[in-house]
Amino acid sequence: MSNHYSSVGLVTAQRAEFNVPLPLANGSTLDQYEMVYETYGELNAARSNAVLICHALSGNHHVAGRYNLDDKNPGWWDTMVGPGKPIDTNHFFVIGVNNLGGCHGSTGPSSLDPATGQPYGSAFPVLTVEDWVHSQARLADRLGVDRFAAVIGGSLGGMQVLQWSITFPDRVANALVIASAPKLSAQNIAFNDVARQAILTDPDFHGGDFYRHQTAPRRGLRLARMLGHITYLSDDGMGEKFGRMLRSGSYQYGYDVEFEIESYLRYQGDRFSGVFDANTYLLMTKALDYFDPARHTGHNLTQALAAVKARFLVVSFTTDWRFSPERSREIVKALLDARKDVSYVEVESVHGHDAFLMTDPAYVRVMRAYLRRVAEGLQI
Amino acid sequence: MSNHYSSVGLVTAQRAEFNVPLPLANGSTLDQYEMVYETYGELNAARSNAVLICHALSGNHHVAGRYNLDDKNPGWWDTMVGPGKPIDTNHFFVIGVNNLGGCHGSTGPSSLDPATGQPYGSAFPVLTVEDWVHSQARLADRLGVDRFAAVIGGSLGGMQVLQWSITFPDRVANALVIASAPKLSAQNIAFNDVARQAILTDPDFHGGDFYRHQTAPRRGLRLARMLGHITYLSDDGMGEKFGRMLRSGSYQYGYDVEFEIESYLRYQGDRFSGVFDANTYLLMTKALDYFDPARHTGHNLTQALAAVKARFLVVSFTTDWRFSPERSREIVKALLDARKDVSYVEVESVHGHDAFLMTDPAYVRVMRAYLRRVAEGLQI
Repeated sequence: MSNHYSSVGLVTAQRAEFNVPLPLANGSTLDQYEMVYETYGELNAARSNAVLICHALSGNHHVAGRYNLDDKNPGWWDTMVGPGKPIDTNHFFVIGVNNLGGCHGSTGPSSLDPATGQPYGSAFPVLTVEDWVHSQARLADRLGVDRFAAVIGGSLGGMQVLQWSITFPDRVANALVIASAPKLSAQNIAFNDVARQAILTDPDFHGGDFYRHQTAPRRGLRLARMLGHITYLSDDGMGEKFGRMLRSGSYQYGYDVEFEIESYLRYQGDRFSGVFDANTYLLMTKALDYFDPARHTGHNLTQALAAVKARFLVVSFTTDWRFSPERSREIVKALLDARKDVSYVEVESVHGHDAFLMTDPAYVRVMRAYLRRVAEGLQI
Repeated sequence: MSNHYSSVGLVTAQRAEFNVPLPLANGSTLDQYEMVYETYGELNAARSNAVLICHALSGNHHVAGRYNLDDKNPGWWDTMVGPGKPIDTNHFFVIGVNNLGGCHGSTGPSSLDPATGQPYGSAFPVLTVEDWVHSQARLADRLGVDRFAAVIGGSLGGMQVLQWSITFPDRVANALVIASAPKLSAQNIAFNDVARQAILTDPDFHGGDFYRHQTAPRRGLRLARMLGHITYLSDDGMGEKFGRMLRSGSYQYGYDVEFEIESYLRYQGDRFSGVFDANTYLLMTKALDYFDPARHTGHNLTQALAAVKARFLVVSFTTDWRFSPERSREIVKALLDARKDVSYVEVESVHGHDAFLMTDPAYVRVMRAYLRRVAEGLQI
């Protein structure tokens, strides 16, 4: 029992520097860059037990464990990664990485541009999921990992998993694509664009070069995050948790917080806008918009997946309306049509898109069962 | 055939002044105010054929017809109101009114406060659906209408219809509640609050008194409208109309318009923010949040509807996710439980919430059929 809930313990972020230019989808290159990452568990002698965790919009490399004994918040997927947990660090060598363009240590818009000695700001390139996969592959090379036992991610992370299986079919044994989609819908793009416009039109954005003005577009980023949060939760889940509950028990007839849901959203927005980089937020939403692996095969996803060799686990959640089960089924159908090996589970959950970060029992069970089989099949 | 598509023709807005203080839900009063309205058709001798049209968030009194021969855009419900149309001005005396707090002529935040000679701005009271119904009843008195053959509205307009039937049971013969809800969900309130925060945090808002600074919070209002638009359209409808269509045929890797859906939304936002009053927008969203007729009857909607005498037509649209069919069914169930006379139609439509302004054939058919029976039953 205690094993189920034990932690990877204290962890330290590591840093890898790269000096070979990385060609990007936009036609430019990133000539030198750093990536921060963390690892949990031990790489086995056969180097066959590595697992890569790909993060979503606001995630990072700090997947599990704590930085010190007073650290109140463990890594963002500490419920899933650790000894005895579904992504079991007794069996796997788990890698968490902060994507390029991020704001948690890897080279991004707030990093110093070696060409100018100033933060990149608007000069930082717009990146794609393909760019991230290429950069992650270089990190894997550095760590001596030729082939991953599993690449795992939810939401935007799931898109990276899909791209890994397409770009490097020989380097992915198992692909776990959770609460994701094969491409954004018009509505998905629309929400992203409102979020971006909130940031881009904030007078403190300064065309992306707000760093040199010692300010940040916090109003815009706050709105973007508030809006994002609505799409992460389900209508039902929000109803159960907040309903029409009033702060003070009666209508105030003004514009301060009135309903508890307002208080929750504003708090989330305030907190996020104080710690996250607005340029990173913009860049992440663009990577979401651009992701469309079937774009290169005449909009035929089956054909895009033709060369894939991984076995797949695809997971969706019933109340997720950002990336609904229907979107996961598109992936599953294309994999089946391409005669690939795929398991699909639609988890009953009230948690909407956020469910991929939660611990609904059926979700935890299927992750544990799938990954136990992966662990049992490892070459040692 | 031509009769079906004929118009009420040229129309003129009229103005009514009121000098008896109107008590408001927030405890204050509006001491003097004006309401602009339009009428189409003739009030019959028995004064039994009046129909009130209640508008939604961005609507107004200009429901049908044109102001002059060069006027390119007819009133907002010109498809529904006119000679031979479902709300047939050959039979009905139709009244359109701009709600108090509006920005199309009725007294609102941008009107001059007689106490100061300056625009009300932040001094204008937050209004409720109940306040509107009371003010509309005074206008009906002025026009000599004791009892409406029908009160009709979609969305926020449908809430006014519901409130009319509750507040003045003897004054409403038929209540047509379209694409509406008995109260907002937490998710509905959340979207409204993001829209409000966009306006309230715009540096040009000046606490609501932007008029005196010769500016307006256009950035915030633009974002609010963009967000609103996403919730008016269905995911499917947006997908059919825009999909992932690119402006230029290829990815630009920047933050200008890339997908057609972005172009559409930004255009809608730009246009709206140039003509609509931000304080009115705030006030309308608050009226939506506050509407909850069952609040006075221990959250029992059936009980709230106990004294209602109107016959009801409730209409919802399959792809409306802002006020889904489920929300209309709550109203229908409460009416049935209260042993009221109600017809309910769930219209198959791809147009989402906006469908109430469109002309899906099944929708037009049911409106026409219901109102023909109302016309046939009129006392003359």
